[in-house]
Formats: sequence, structure tokens, C-alpha cells
Amino acid sequence: MRKHSVSWGVGIVLALWAGQAMSASQEPIQPIEPVVIKEPEKVELGKMLFFDPRLSRSGAISCNSCHNLAMGGSDNLKASIGHQWQMGGINSPTVLNSSMNIAQFWDGRAKDLREQAGGPIANPAEMASSHEVAVQVLNSIPGYRSEFKRVFGKDGITIDEVTSALAAFEETLVTPNSRFDKWLKGDKNALTVRELAGYQLFKNSGCVACHNGAAVGGNSFQKMGLVSPYVTDNKAEGRAGVTGQDADRFNFKVPTLRNVALTYPYFHDGEAATLTQAVDVMGRLQLGRTFTDEENGQIVAFLKTLTGDQPVIQYPVLPPSEDDTPRPEPFVK
Amino acid sequence: MRKHSVSWGVGIVLALWAGQAMSASQEPIQPIEPVVIKEPEKVELGKMLFFDPRLSRSGAISCNSCHNLAMGGSDNLKASIGHQWQMGGINSPTVLNSSMNIAQFWDGRAKDLREQAGGPIANPAEMASSHEVAVQVLNSIPGYRSEFKRVFGKDGITIDEVTSALAAFEETLVTPNSRFDKWLKGDKNALTVRELAGYQLFKNSGCVACHNGAAVGGNSFQKMGLVSPYVTDNKAEGRAGVTGQDADRFNFKVPTLRNVALTYPYFHDGEAATLTQAVDVMGRLQLGRTFTDEENGQIVAFLKTLTGDQPVIQYPVLPPSEDDTPRPEPFVK
Repeated sequence: MRKHSVSWGVGIVLALWAGQAMSASQEPIQPIEPVVIKEPEKVELGKMLFFDPRLSRSGAISCNSCHNLAMGGSDNLKASIGHQWQMGGINSPTVLNSSMNIAQFWDGRAKDLREQAGGPIANPAEMASSHEVAVQVLNSIPGYRSEFKRVFGKDGITIDEVTSALAAFEETLVTPNSRFDKWLKGDKNALTVRELAGYQLFKNSGCVACHNGAAVGGNSFQKMGLVSPYVTDNKAEGRAGVTGQDADRFNFKVPTLRNVALTYPYFHDGEAATLTQAVDVMGRLQLGRTFTDEENGQIVAFLKTLTGDQPVIQYPVLPPSEDDTPRPEPFVK
Repeated sequence: MRKHSVSWGVGIVLALWAGQAMSASQEPIQPIEPVVIKEPEKVELGKMLFFDPRLSRSGAISCNSCHNLAMGGSDNLKASIGHQWQMGGINSPTVLNSSMNIAQFWDGRAKDLREQAGGPIANPAEMASSHEVAVQVLNSIPGYRSEFKRVFGKDGITIDEVTSALAAFEETLVTPNSRFDKWLKGDKNALTVRELAGYQLFKNSGCVACHNGAAVGGNSFQKMGLVSPYVTDNKAEGRAGVTGQDADRFNFKVPTLRNVALTYPYFHDGEAATLTQAVDVMGRLQLGRTFTDEENGQIVAFLKTLTGDQPVIQYPVLPPSEDDTPRPEPFVK
């Protein structure tokens, strides 16, 4: 008897939700569509480069070190580990769905993935190589020379080709088919009552003001600490470093919430270890609202439905260096 | 006319080689056979663990960091980079075909892959975790709990199960179908005249005394510096550290030469940057023989035929940590 009445109760609640839900086109979040690969050879080359630690001075750090495709396209560290174990200044954002971002890096200083890709290679605190050495390394390797020629139709490798191939690969790293997307597309059984309640709260309490669109974020810059100031030891100043405008201090790119269950820890300083903490801080500092434990739990339950199909990656076999390839220098001071 | 006579000349030489060549069963090197996977779920679990940096204290170093399957199962560094950028004491040997080794590590201190796998996890200079913490991390992750239960048929994860799964994966990392193996199996066109001349020289000058069997090495311990002493700053003493016998000083496991074109640099100290250097040093110090440039080039040409099919690896998607999973400590002193 009891079992029956519970089922009946759930049925009513589901019916109410179904009635309230807007059609997918009216929702502030849109589904992610599977990628259509137009240039498979360029994507394959970009994948090789993404996994190749020889783009770093140490020979040990690749793009995948901090944007690990086994771990939601992130490194799951507060601060990344750079050349000779330097501590990174900011939490590594996920590479997944990053093609949907309004710009790249937390402060948006790179306009697109191509521009971003050149940054870490030459950053002394990250991969600590230079564009010149990186290109010299690749040009010395017959396996790369032939691949670049096949993709770009000419001899010789340039840094623009390197970043172009990396960006082409990264553009394929989208994560469709999350349970939330299935719900958006009409499968009303894809979410539980609790998850739907979380989504409703996410909308009604104002989270969607910044976290909207297909990437559930990534499409605007917003101030961290809008209602109450955010206290942190982290020195990053956000957009102000790009625009020179004092008004842009602590303005950061709103991160995507796609796959957020995989991309812990949270915020630009990585100080929120769990989704529960992150939701609590966002509520208080950005919305002036203290979520109850139950509300927080509902929103977290919703956020966990944003994990999509992870990209299927065949691990590349990289072409070996030649005798004249510049050697890595991991321990040279 | 000239073209014809050259072809004819090559034809004669090939015929002579074919006549001289023993059948595969008489050769001191045997082909590598493709692996037959008997426990696919255990292998898949082992692959996840092999790529999981959470087995290290920093959360950044996995088995694959030093035994990179994109680069011949090695890191292509003289000395590996350990926790907080410590310099490794010895060159990382390849994980490829390592199941054929008489024992593991250069000094053979681990009797098999299971015993080896536990070493780096708890080595303070390498992954710098402990078996207790590694198991605690895995036990906190639902995705691992269910996988271990599926493979081992019980609740709870032990370090023996971790190393057993890692070994099961590593046993699949064999590299059949090298050009040399094709030649061994009867395809007399698989090698060039120069490569065959290199193999003949490799046999006749005594390299095969140590580099034989399917792995072309890996099956004995030999003294580094047999005819003339090997001079190095490296402090490793080889077998003596295991047996306590002074006679075992500088006795090291003979490395496999399978995929040797991919596993530069060479020797336990990584001091030989190229195959040319390695062949020269081996000839002088182990055989008392100085190879001419032409002889050296022939042997190097032969060695490059030992590159087999690299394992096809679908990059794993690792289950995320939970709120109570012990967090990495990359920067804690």
C-alpha cells in the first residue's frame, strides 16, 4: 500500500514538472550536439601534438598534463604543476567544450583556441619552451614533417600550423548526450524528481543569469564576488589585466558547468574542493542567497546530470625523435 | 643498362643471404606473438590504474608518465622526473614486452610485474604515495569499487589487487609484427640488404650473446663494462644491491632491444643519446671491438627493424573522485 501511494505521489509531481517545463527551445540551456569532423587528418595531427610532451622544455609536460582527457579535460588540482614543479597561478579550466567559450583563459586574453594554444608552450612557468624550439623539434622529426605536409600541403612547419592543428583537435572535444540534454530533447524520464527540482532552483534563484547557453557558461565575463567580496590569496585580477580598466578587477570568464562533476576543484583559485562548497559560495557571494542543505543538494544533483559522453580517444603513437632533434632539458637551471 | 645490372647484383646478394639465413627456429631471436587477452575486464581495470595520476601523492604522476605508451613505453629522458621534480636515479626502462624480462628493474629486484608495480607508487622519489593511501583513494571512488568487485568478485580493494590488475594490463603490451619478425617468419623481402648485413654482424660480433630470445635481451644480467670499464657519474651498482655480492657490481639486466628506435636515450644512466653512440660503446666495452662507421650504420639499420606494432590503447575515462577522496598534495613539503 505504502509503496503504491509513494509511486502515485511521484507520478503527480512528475506530471506537474512536465507541465511546468518549457520546451527545449525555450530553456536557457541548449543541448550539445555531437561534433562533425570535417578535417580528420588535421584533427589527428592535433591530437598527436596535444599528447606530445616534447612541446615542453622538460620533455615531460604536454597539453594533456593539465587538460587530461581521462579526467574531464582538467588536472583536478587546485593549481597546475609547471616546468620544474612551479605552482600555476590559476586553476586549469577544462578543454572540454572550450570551443564554445567567448574567449580563452580565465581572463579571456586569447580570442580563440588557436591563440590559446601558443600560450602554455612558451610560458616559462608552464611548458617553458619557445615557439622557435617547439617548431625546431617538430621539424626535425620525419613523422611530423610528413603529417604537416599532408595536412597543410607544403614543406616546413610553422607555429601557426601547430596551433591551428591543436585547435582543430580541441574543437572535437565536445560532450553530447548528458542526461540533462536527453531531458532537454524530450526524454522526461532522463532526470529524477530531485534533479529536476535542482534545475528549477538553478533557474529560479538566478544561476542561469550567468550559466546559460549550450555550455552552461563560458559566454560572458562576470565579477567574482558580486554581492559580497570573494576573499582569496590568489593574485589573479581577471579582465583588468587585459583591459587595463580598474572596473574589470575580479571579472573572470564564467566557467562552463558541463561535466562539472569531473572538473573539481572549483573557481579560478581552485579553493572549492566540492560541488557542495561551490554552490554554497556562489549562492552567497553572487546571489546573496544562502541555500539550505536540501536546496544545495538538489542543485548539486542537477549539476551532476551535465556530464556528457566523454570524447573517445585512441591514444596516439608519436613519431620518434631523430639524432638531431633538440633534447629535453628537465633539470637544467 | 646500369639500372638492370644493379638490380641483378642486388638479386644475387639477396639469394646469398637467403641461402645463408637459418630457418626462424634456428635463429637466436624469436618472433613476438600477438597477445591473447584472457581477462579483458582485469586488463581494462589495469589500464585505468596505469593512466591514473591519483596513485601518486601529487595527483600528477601516473605509471604512464615514465612509461609513456605514446613513446615506446618510456619517457625518452635520461632520468625520469619524480615527485616535486626529483631527478630519478636510473633511466626508465620500457614497459613494452616487459613481461618477457627475467625480472623487473635494472637490478632485477622485483621478480615480476606485480612486484614491480608496487614500487614506484610508494617510492618517495617517484610517485611518493603509499600503498595505504593509494588503496584509500581507490576505495573512496564508486567507479573503482564496482570495477574491482567485478574483476575480483568481492568488496574492498587491496594493494595486491591493484598490482595484479596493473600487471595484467602490462602483460598485453607486446609488439608483434616488426619487420624483423616478418623476416624471421619467412618474408625475405621484409629487410633490406643493409639491414640483413647489420643482423649478420650483430650475430657474428657477439651482440646476440646477451641480446637474444624473443625480447632480444631481458633474459640475463651482465656486467656493464666487460672488456673495458664503463665510466659514469651514475651511482647505480646493479645486482650487487640485491645480492650483496661484490662480484655483482655493475651487473645490470640486459635491456630488451625491441622498439629500441623509440626508447632513446640508452643505458641505465641514459648517457647514450643515439643508437650510433650506444652501438659504439657496446662494441668497445662489451666486445672489445671498434665498429667502423659502416658497420655501426648496418647494426643501427638492423636495430630499427625491431620496432613492432605498438599497442592500440583507447585512452581511459577515469571515474571521478568523491568528496571524501583524499586530495593530492603536489606542493606540500
